Parts: sequence; C-alpha cells; structure tokens
Amino acid sequence: MKIIVIGASGTLGKKVVEAFEKDHEVIKAGSKSGDFHVDISSTNSIHDFFRHIGTFDALISTTGNGHFGPIAKMTDKDFRVGIDSKLLGQVNLVLIGQHYISEGGSFTLTSGIICDEPILNGLNLSTVNAGINAFVAAAAIELHNGVRINAVCPSVVEDSPAYFPSFPGYIPVSMERVKAAYVQSVLGARTGQVFKVY
Amino acid sequence: MKIIVIGASGTLGKKVVEAFEKDHEVIKAGSKSGDFHVDISSTNSIHDFFRHIGTFDALISTTGNGHFGPIAKMTDKDFRVGIDSKLLGQVNLVLIGQHYISEGGSFTLTSGIICDEPILNGLNLSTVNAGINAFVAAAAIELHNGVRINAVCPSVVEDSPAYFPSFPGYIPVSMERVKAAYVQSVLGARTGQVFKVY
Ligand SMILES: NC(=O)c1ccc[n+]([C@@H]2O[C@H](COP(=O)([O-])OP(=O)(O)OC[C@H]3O[C@@H](n4cnc5c(N)ncnc54)[C@H](OP(=O)(O)O)[C@@H]3O)[C@@H](O)[C@H]2O)c1
Ligand SMILES: NC(=O)c1ccc[n+]([C@@H]2O[C@H](COP(=O)([O-])OP(=O)(O)OC[C@H]3O[C@@H](n4cnc5c(N)ncnc54)[C@H](OP(=O)(O)O)[C@@H]3O)[C@@H](O)[C@H]2O)c1
Repeated sequence: MKIIVIGASGTLGKKVVEAFEKDHEVIKAGSKSGDFHVDISSTNSIHDFFRHIGTFDALISTTGNGHFGPIAKMTDKDFRVGIDSKLLGQVNLVLIGQHYISEGGSFTLTSGIICDEPILNGLNLSTVNAGINAFVAAAAIELHNGVRINAVCPSVVEDSPAYFPSFPGYIPVSMERVKAAYVQSVLGARTGQVFKVY
Repeated sequence: MKIIVIGASGTLGKKVVEAFEKDHEVIKAGSKSGDFHVDISSTNSIHDFFRHIGTFDALISTTGNGHFGPIAKMTDKDFRVGIDSKLLGQVNLVLIGQHYISEGGSFTLTSGIICDEPILNGLNLSTVNAGINAFVAAAAIELHNGVRINAVCPSVVEDSPAYFPSFPGYIPVSMERVKAAYVQSVLGARTGQVFKVY
C-alpha cells in the first residue's frame, strides 16, 4: 500500500511510520520535515501536495495544533488556532484528499482524550477533538468507493513527558498501544470509528 | 432574572421566550429581528451588544447556521459556514459574555442530535454540534464565580417540518420537551451538561 503520514516526524508520527514502513510504501510529510512538505492550515498547500503525490491508498494524519490556555483570557483569535490547524487542517485533508484516494482506501485522523475528559486550559482542543470524532462518524456514511475513515483518540502518551503535568492522575499510554490503533484503522475493515487509546 | 435569548424569533427561540417571559425579564435578540441586534458571526457585533446590554443573569443561544450538502462536493468554504456561525458564533458569545455575566449566571447553547447520529448531508453540523457539546463540558470546569454552562441538544422538532425528510424514521420531538430542557439548564443547578432531547 502507498501510505501517506502527515506529521511523520512527530512523537506519534515517528511510531506510526515504524508500524508501516516494513511492509508498505510510506510517504512522510510535514510542514518543514519529511519527504514532502504540506501545511495543513493552507488549502492551497494541500491541493499542491495531492497533485504532486497523486493516488494513494491510506492517509494518516498525526498532526494539528491547538491553543492551550485558560478560558478567562481566551479570545476568538486564540480559539481559531485549533480550529484552523487541527480541526479544519484535518477536515481539508479529507475534503481534498477524497478526490485522490484509491477505491477501498482509508483516512485516519487524530483527536485526543480531552474530547470527553476535559483538563484545565484544554478548552480549545476539547472542542476540536470532539469535532474530529464526529466528523469521521458523519463522513463514513457518505464516502463512496469503499473508502473508510476513522480517528485515533489517544490519552497522553509515554513519549510526551512535557504534557504529564497537564494530566494529573493519568497513566500515560504506551506507544505500542498508540501504534496498534493506527494499524487497526488502516489494515482493519471498520469505518466511522473512534479508536480510543485509554 | 435578566435573560438574553439570541435567536429569539426562531422556531426554537420563540418557544424558549414563552418559557421564561412570564417570570423573567427576557431580552430578545437576532441579527435582524428582536429588541436588540447582534450578529454572532462578528466579534465586533458581539462586543457592541454586550457593552449595550451590560450585566445579565442568563444567556440562551438558539441560533447558528451550518452548511448542508454532500461530502463529495464539500469545500473548505462550505465547511466554514457552520464553523464561523454555529460553532464560533456560540463560542464567542461565551468568551466575550463571560466578562459581563453575573455571579451564578448561566450560558445555554444549542447543538443537535446529529452530533452522534449522523444523517446524509449533515457532515458540517455533526462536527459543529459535537464541538459545542465538548466546549460546554470543558468550559464548565474553568468558569469562575459559580457561572454555569450547558448545551441543549434537540432531535428534529415538531415545528420544523421542512427538516423531516432529512430525518427518516425520526419521531419529531415536542416543543414542550425542548422548552423544558432550556428551563432545566437555566433554572436548574447542573453545569457542563448536554441536555439531550431525544
Ligand atoms: N503527544 C501526545 O501525548 C498526544 C496525545 C493525544 C493526542 N495527540 C495529538 O496527536 C497529534 C500529534 O501530536 P505529537 O505530540 O506527535 O506532535 P509533534 O511531536 O509536535 O509532531 C507534530 C508533527 O506534525 C507536523 N506539523 C506541524 N504543523 C504542521 C502543519 N501545519 N502541516 C503539516 N504538518 C505539520 C510536524 O512536522 P513539521 O515541523 O515538519 O511541520 C510534526 O511531524 C496532535 O494533534 C496532538 O494533539 C498527542
Ligand atoms: N429546528 C430544529 O428541528 C432543530 C433541531 C436541532 C437543533 N436545532 C438548532 O437550533 C438552532 C435554532 O434552530 P431554529 O430551527 O430555531 O432556527 P430558525 O428558526 O432559523 O431561527 C434562527 C434564529 O437565529 C437568528 N439568527 C440567524 N442568524 C443569526 C446571526 N448571525 N446572529 C444572531 N442571530 C441570528 C434568527 O433571527 P434573525 O433572522 O433576526 O437573525 C432567528 O431568531 C440552530 O442552531 C439549529 O441547528 C434546530
């Protein structure tokens, strides 16, 4: 399979690449790193990327930023960080990528546990992550040609110690479990699912 | 109580006004209708609105548009309709309104059943509605001064026959039940909740 990983150089992306590169052709992308560059917050950049790559069998997105901070000081501008990057960035990978994906191909997006277990300062990403999970469920009933779509929704992962203080009492999940969820999504047959890793 | 209803002239808003106006001061707002005008898709308009109204005890939003159409033809521009109106419009009512609300006051936003029961053409509003539900849960753990926040999440309502064909097999919910959910949110004590009317 020809598998695109957007965010391939990141904490999650690196492990996802490991999971697939032995048996598949993996195309690693990032805004600055990787074999090919794409900025998911720009629809022009996404269009250029797919025109360049052409047809593919699976797209995995392990990327997307959000604003972290207290509601008391939050503004529309802050809130749009996560909307434009992690939410619309991933949405646009699908809206544009649907015209390039092979029959029976799959999209796998990344959300995160705070969609339903909010933490302090996480308002923007809670909203965005829940949006992504609902997006895959709704997109799955409409995509044609056997194209599937899922989200992987991890808790804080063991390789991201910088986030541990934001998740008091959370036992970080292993990278093996995170990798396994992406494998379930890409090589399994389910669609419209949220693979919770927690 | 001084209760602001944004979207007061709408199908839901009219009934919500009925539920409160006997015992409370209800301020009816809309972009073109109502006692005061506010366009929720403009932060300038929201700022002007609250400067004009001043302190209030409860804000109920029964408004917000989205894009309705198939994923196959959907673009970033289409998708932003619901993001800018129903999602960020309601988010900004809270981000800006938090600086005007009284101690112990409440925000009540409106989402909708397709957050977790997708329908054809509903991709944009499924995403937006799920975002709203997660937003209220995450905002509730951060708001100060006893301020509460909830969402009412109705199924298709009996007064909106134009939507019935989009909801095959759905039994429209009564306006009495919808009204009751807004009363639970405003006059009850719960916070961070999604009041599902289905
Ligand atoms: N780490 C966790 O514990 C955890 C838990 C749950 C969910 N998540 C979610 O998982 C995703 C990845 O997290 P991570 O910790 O692996 O992040 P990370 O280590 O910061 O990696 C981000 C990756 O995305 C790429 N990237 C950044 N901006 C981009 C853009 N505009 N367009 C395209 N690619 C871009 C980066 O490469 P370039 O620098 O080359 O752009 C990098 O490869 C995030 O959405 C995060 O919220 C993470
Ligand atoms: N009807 C249903 O079956 C149903 C079910 C579930 C959820 N919902 C949700 O409930 C909400 C209200 O639905 P509805 O059927 O009552 O809608 P509606 O009848 O079209 O009423 C919309 C209301 O919002 C106001 N409005 C429109 N654009 C606005 C803007 N930019 N800024 C401020 N106010 C604005 C309108 O007044 P002006 O024209 O003066 O602006 C009107 O008062 C929507 O978000 C809808 O998705 C509806």
